[in-house]
Amino acid sequence: MIETQLLSGTVVAAAVKEEVAARVVALAKRDKSVGLATVLVGEDPASEVYVRNKRRTAENLGIKSIHHQLPADTSQGEVDDLILRLNEDPAVNGILVQLPLPAGLDGERTVNLIDPTKDADGLHPSNLGKLILGRPGLTPCTPTGVMRILEHYGIEVTGRHAVVIGRSFLVGRPLALLFNQKGVDATVTMAHSRTPNLAAVARAADIVVAAVGVPKLVGPDFVKPGATVIDVGINRTDDGLVGDADFEALQGIAGAMTPVPKGVGPMTVAMLMHNTVTAAEAACSRGNRPSSPVVVER
Amino acid sequence: MIETQLLSGTVVAAAVKEEVAARVVALAKRDKSVGLATVLVGEDPASEVYVRNKRRTAENLGIKSIHHQLPADTSQGEVDDLILRLNEDPAVNGILVQLPLPAGLDGERTVNLIDPTKDADGLHPSNLGKLILGRPGLTPCTPTGVMRILEHYGIEVTGRHAVVIGRSFLVGRPLALLFNQKGVDATVTMAHSRTPNLAAVARAADIVVAAVGVPKLVGPDFVKPGATVIDVGINRTDDGLVGDADFEALQGIAGAMTPVPKGVGPMTVAMLMHNTVTAAEAACSRGNRPSSPVVVER
Repeated sequence: MIETQLLSGTVVAAAVKEEVAARVVALAKRDKSVGLATVLVGEDPASEVYVRNKRRTAENLGIKSIHHQLPADTSQGEVDDLILRLNEDPAVNGILVQLPLPAGLDGERTVNLIDPTKDADGLHPSNLGKLILGRPGLTPCTPTGVMRILEHYGIEVTGRHAVVIGRSFLVGRPLALLFNQKGVDATVTMAHSRTPNLAAVARAADIVVAAVGVPKLVGPDFVKPGATVIDVGINRTDDGLVGDADFEALQGIAGAMTPVPKGVGPMTVAMLMHNTVTAAEAACSRGNRPSSPVVVER
Repeated sequence: MIETQLLSGTVVAAAVKEEVAARVVALAKRDKSVGLATVLVGEDPASEVYVRNKRRTAENLGIKSIHHQLPADTSQGEVDDLILRLNEDPAVNGILVQLPLPAGLDGERTVNLIDPTKDADGLHPSNLGKLILGRPGLTPCTPTGVMRILEHYGIEVTGRHAVVIGRSFLVGRPLALLFNQKGVDATVTMAHSRTPNLAAVARAADIVVAAVGVPKLVGPDFVKPGATVIDVGINRTDDGLVGDADFEALQGIAGAMTPVPKGVGPMTVAMLMHNTVTAAEAACSRGNRPSSPVVVER
């Protein structure tokens, strides 16, 4: 019987945050402060909780939280103007627009307006494109957090076969590209809800990532004994929060596994802070000039 | 013994070009011309051949070819200025910068300056990012050409397992994402030169794509009987041009296969024309206004 190792996102997120705090201190010694602008439109209670959590985490790490709370009836033009102002503001290193925006506002357009060098979420199309180009850029928080968990626990990725179930732009697709980068060198299968024989496909993997939003989809038939299981799912069910993997049923089968909660979840905010300080360091090397105005599709 | 079907890129490219020519005529009826600007810096003989071929194809399809030939000692500032002028020019619907640029010029920077709505090659980071976002955009020519060959010959992709060998930003990575789009719904494995047991990985596929630059890598041990083989490789060897797949050895094993030459090769220029007329149609719907100036990373 295998003893399944617990991969604690809480532990890894704490390590990331400690590293971020040290980098903020190092920048402060060069008279450079770090600022994260959060934009919340309307009064969605869940969004308010998320933003409060991000602001509190930032402040705990010495990152200045610059919050903009706009009423639900804000026009797109007003949102656009705010983003363009934040793009130009040298005190702002990261910009986070809490999605979804209220009806009538265009979240995609708004994200596209963010200066890619201040794109704390790593979701601007041009930052996503860099994952294909294999060029450095700010990367999406959740998939980068998954890679960080694997790295922290010394789980070998190079030469291994990862199967990523789920093809969202938030997790599955960028994560597959992170596994595929040169130097990481995993072989990756992008699977999804329409993949035939999904269990058999997953069972070929050394690392199974479940990011598809189906409670307890990944059970013993999906996991080769000893394989690592990363559970990105967060599903609200009558039994409380459950992941996309069956945590109990996989004990003794998976070699290592993230729980839900306290698995991948805490990594998202930690990597947001990581992106913010990375952006601040890059701005510092550029001499804090904002990037140049160029034509881009709106 | 299977009779291996020949997938002729020449035939499919001709069909694409015929469709493009008809769309150019339809735009002309609305008093809208279609223009493709080509930018060639220096005198690399191979680049000159490629550009001449693209210009000639454009003109054959009724697309106006607007060529800019610059000396090898052109400064980056002059290249930048030219791109920005072409971005603003309503007669230019597609912009193609022939890479590589001479030493001292930055190809990546130059491509990043192209208005994504005029990015005929589909290689601007923000167009690549749209493949992750699952949003419409101009897509890279060679991988889009591969999808078009499969479509033309009625080769089922939905629910099938594709293995893409090679992870370039030109072919492998964007092609994997095209297979992964909703509505296409293939399961895709991204393999590469460092994938262990590559032959066994490929043998699991219904569709094997070889885009890795290793002559005749994909032999009988890589191909499940009846699988489709798409050969994107073009390798100059003592035996002349050979692909990444062993065309002769796979006769009677592959269900269908592209040759080299006259396979994927002719699709690249055809899809460049396809992107150019698509961009012209989009500009026409936007009322031919150039896209708005916004800040983007240089």
